[in-house]
Amino acid sequence: MRAIYPGSFDPVTFGHLDIICRSSKIADELIIGVLKNNAKSPLFSLEERVKMLEEVTKDYHNVKVVPFEGLLVDFAKNMKADIVVRGLRAITDFEYELQMAQTNHKLEENVETIFLSTRLEYSYLSSTIVKEVASFNGDISQFVPKVVEQRIREKIQKRRV
Amino acid sequence: MRAIYPGSFDPVTFGHLDIICRSSKIADELIIGVLKNNAKSPLFSLEERVKMLEEVTKDYHNVKVVPFEGLLVDFAKNMKADIVVRGLRAITDFEYELQMAQTNHKLEENVETIFLSTRLEYSYLSSTIVKEVASFNGDISQFVPKVVEQRIREKIQKRRV
Amino acid sequence: MRAIYPGSFDPVTFGHLDIICRSSKIADELIIGVLKNNAKSPLFSLEERVKMLEEVTKDYHNVKVVPFEGLLVDFAKNMKADIVVRGLRAITDFEYELQMAQTNHKLEENVETIFLSTRLEYSYLSSTIVKEVASFNGDISQFVPKVVEQRIREKIQKRRV
Amino acid sequence: MRAIYPGSFDPVTFGHLDIICRSSKIADELIIGVLKNNAKSPLFSLEERVKMLEEVTKDYHNVKVVPFEGLLVDFAKNMKADIVVRGLRAITDFEYELQMAQTNHKLEENVETIFLSTRLEYSYLSSTIVKEVASFNGDISQFVPKVVEQRIREKIQKRRV
Amino acid sequence: MRAIYPGSFDPVTFGHLDIICRSSKIADELIIGVLKNNAKSPLFSLEERVKMLEEVTKDYHNVKVVPFEGLLVDFAKNMKADIVVRGLRAITDFEYELQMAQTNHKLEENVETIFLSTRLEYSYLSSTIVKEVASFNGDISQFVPKVVEQRIREKIQKRRV
Amino acid sequence: MRAIYPGSFDPVTFGHLDIICRSSKIADELIIGVLKNNAKSPLFSLEERVKMLEEVTKDYHNVKVVPFEGLLVDFAKNMKADIVVRGLRAITDFEYELQMAQTNHKLEENVETIFLSTRLEYSYLSSTIVKEVASFNGDISQFVPKVVEQRIREKIQKRRV
Repeated sequence: MRAIYPGSFDPVTFGHLDIICRSSKIADELIIGVLKNNAKSPLFSLEERVKMLEEVTKDYHNVKVVPFEGLLVDFAKNMKADIVVRGLRAITDFEYELQMAQTNHKLEENVETIFLSTRLEYSYLSSTIVKEVASFNGDISQFVPKVVEQRIREKIQKRRV
Repeated sequence: MRAIYPGSFDPVTFGHLDIICRSSKIADELIIGVLKNNAKSPLFSLEERVKMLEEVTKDYHNVKVVPFEGLLVDFAKNMKADIVVRGLRAITDFEYELQMAQTNHKLEENVETIFLSTRLEYSYLSSTIVKEVASFNGDISQFVPKVVEQRIREKIQKRRV
Repeated sequence: MRAIYPGSFDPVTFGHLDIICRSSKIADELIIGVLKNNAKSPLFSLEERVKMLEEVTKDYHNVKVVPFEGLLVDFAKNMKADIVVRGLRAITDFEYELQMAQTNHKLEENVETIFLSTRLEYSYLSSTIVKEVASFNGDISQFVPKVVEQRIREKIQKRRV
Repeated sequence: MRAIYPGSFDPVTFGHLDIICRSSKIADELIIGVLKNNAKSPLFSLEERVKMLEEVTKDYHNVKVVPFEGLLVDFAKNMKADIVVRGLRAITDFEYELQMAQTNHKLEENVETIFLSTRLEYSYLSSTIVKEVASFNGDISQFVPKVVEQRIREKIQKRRV
Repeated sequence: MRAIYPGSFDPVTFGHLDIICRSSKIADELIIGVLKNNAKSPLFSLEERVKMLEEVTKDYHNVKVVPFEGLLVDFAKNMKADIVVRGLRAITDFEYELQMAQTNHKLEENVETIFLSTRLEYSYLSSTIVKEVASFNGDISQFVPKVVEQRIREKIQKRRV
Repeated sequence: MRAIYPGSFDPVTFGHLDIICRSSKIADELIIGVLKNNAKSPLFSLEERVKMLEEVTKDYHNVKVVPFEGLLVDFAKNMKADIVVRGLRAITDFEYELQMAQTNHKLEENVETIFLSTRLEYSYLSSTIVKEVASFNGDISQFVPKVVEQRIREKIQKRRV
């Protein structure tokens, strides 16, 4: 079974890593699909996001990081993946995720979406909150891996200069 | 009883059409109110949205399409309508719709809002999702009428050129 | 248009009356369907509930109170009604009501459910809460009409003796 | 990967069958765990529920039906299963399911819960609704397989005699 | 400021203790109101629940345990308390709690309800789940204090004999 | 006990005033923290928002209005406040507020968040809705104090010229 875990990962948090760790045990192969997303202006470029993900997942031997743009179901077909993995945090998540899962199923019947519930200790966490806390020099060491923390600091400092 | 079904309809989907079809049976006359909405930049102009709605509802003899801007309750009073019809899909919808219904009731006590629940097969559907799928050349024939599908294709092609 | 407003009404509250008042303006005829409901043991008998409703709605000339048991869609067909009216208070309501509306639509495609949002001042109110407050001699005059208040007092006193 | 799909299945519906069908494609082996549940008084005995499930899943070669009582995590360990599968229908489901998943994870860290979203056409469906509709002689052929429909009819007729 | 933290506490869990600890810092005096609740049949008698609470809160010098029956607002008035404290875990909680707060405010305008959000690590926890896990000999040491764990074991063993 | 009630207050509404009035009775001192918020472009400048708040709260002797930027927990520490007060209106609010409370608790364990439920009559109200209604010359006298109503009118007129 080959699975895809798609997202923006701008940047990857401990919440994402928890889902990656757990789904890498369920799937034979796990592809982390990093969405290009032209609409939003991300803090990190697509290349930077891919690289950070590769660094923090380098010990998972069945995990691969692949950038993509376009429809998720097309990406899944190209990757010959039959499962999409999504983390569930809260109500708003749930509604949105359900809508996406139903749409993807309508577009491509053979792609199945499975949901994992985010661990309690990360259930409040999002990339957006991490960036907001960091922008005010708050402590983000509980939210992201060491290497990501450093990159955010550099990025934010550069923006200020 | 004269009812208004307001929205942006950018563009009209099978979900909207389901609500139109069902509320045209409940109301004596149904006015589809197409919101100008200066804030958002729509894919289709107000005129295009009105015209598409007229095409896809031409067989409903008690349905009329009317553009409007400003407060919904003022539009309702101008149209001498006493009912506003809204479709309900999900939680987030519900909260927002309730808030709007309460506000409108505060502004004009004689305007009543009634809700119809979106049919299951369209409960995941939104104009936004249709546009997103179309922008990546996904198949939208299950989401919108033939004529709307064609207009979206033309519009998106033009934008790319 | 003939509409049905179904419920247990054990007993009728100001929240119910608000929905009755507003839907009697939308529908040509409104039938209040009082559910027999063998499963739950109500505070008031079916006859008592019907009688109280008749008293408090006697000034609405297009409203009729009719007891029923069995499926709502069968009752609607017998009454030649094409609309079911339901009040929406909160999330849990919404989910349950949606499920019922979908089931009823599956059982009988010609019966349409419309929802009215409960007025803010009654959005916390339920028959259960009224009975609980009354059982501890709390003041329920803000929750139910005078005549209902009196019947609850009598009923509860009798139970204690 | 060996997975467990636990439930009361009183009786099995098309909604359950949809989840069984889809998870049997994800898991190498799927065990349907039928909960004894002394607290509730089911319509069908544990044996009847197991037998009905075996009949309707007999064409799925990697699916096995096993009754259980006690904690789900203990059952999972006994069965050497590492995945629990649950279907998600709506908000209330989601909250409850999340609570269960977190509790099970606290009790046994190696058991992972994955969620599948119920297909739209079955999202309103529950065993309780099926029994309620059947008890009033409503048509349940859209809700359960032929063989289950017949058993419910027999069971309800017997109760009435 | 004198506050009341009401509940059934059948039995007290680490989730309750977290709310007690935090609200004892906000309030000058905190009264834990233990509800008699004739309707439900509790695992522990009112006396046992009061005693367990006294044991586990004996180090909080501004906390007092008081049993009550009847309306919460009457109890608050008798205790000369002006604040009711409630813990919020999830959606269903929220809806119910909001309904109660509004009802209590209608009954007695001078009683204010404040909500604390349950700490993440206890957000899945309820007395019901503790009893269910214990009844199947599951490990409940992460859910309740030592002394409570022992009482539950004794109680359940006695029931089985 | 010193409490902070943070927000954008663009502009202050009767819903905000209700929370201010009620929390000023609970706290010994209440600081209204007005967020600078560079990201959004507010209708009123920070200075205007502070001034309006000072005017409408001038009769509350333990209330002070203080502008801030940066992390809320840092502002709380600077102000030597140990409580953050938040109003709860609806589901979406609840989810978001919970997430913020958990994040703030992670950043600074000594800052406690308490929630008050918005009074029913203001539960639909938001600064955004007030501005939208005003921009179409709707009547906002039920939503904001007289002085705020006037400022909004002036501001909107100026924008049009």
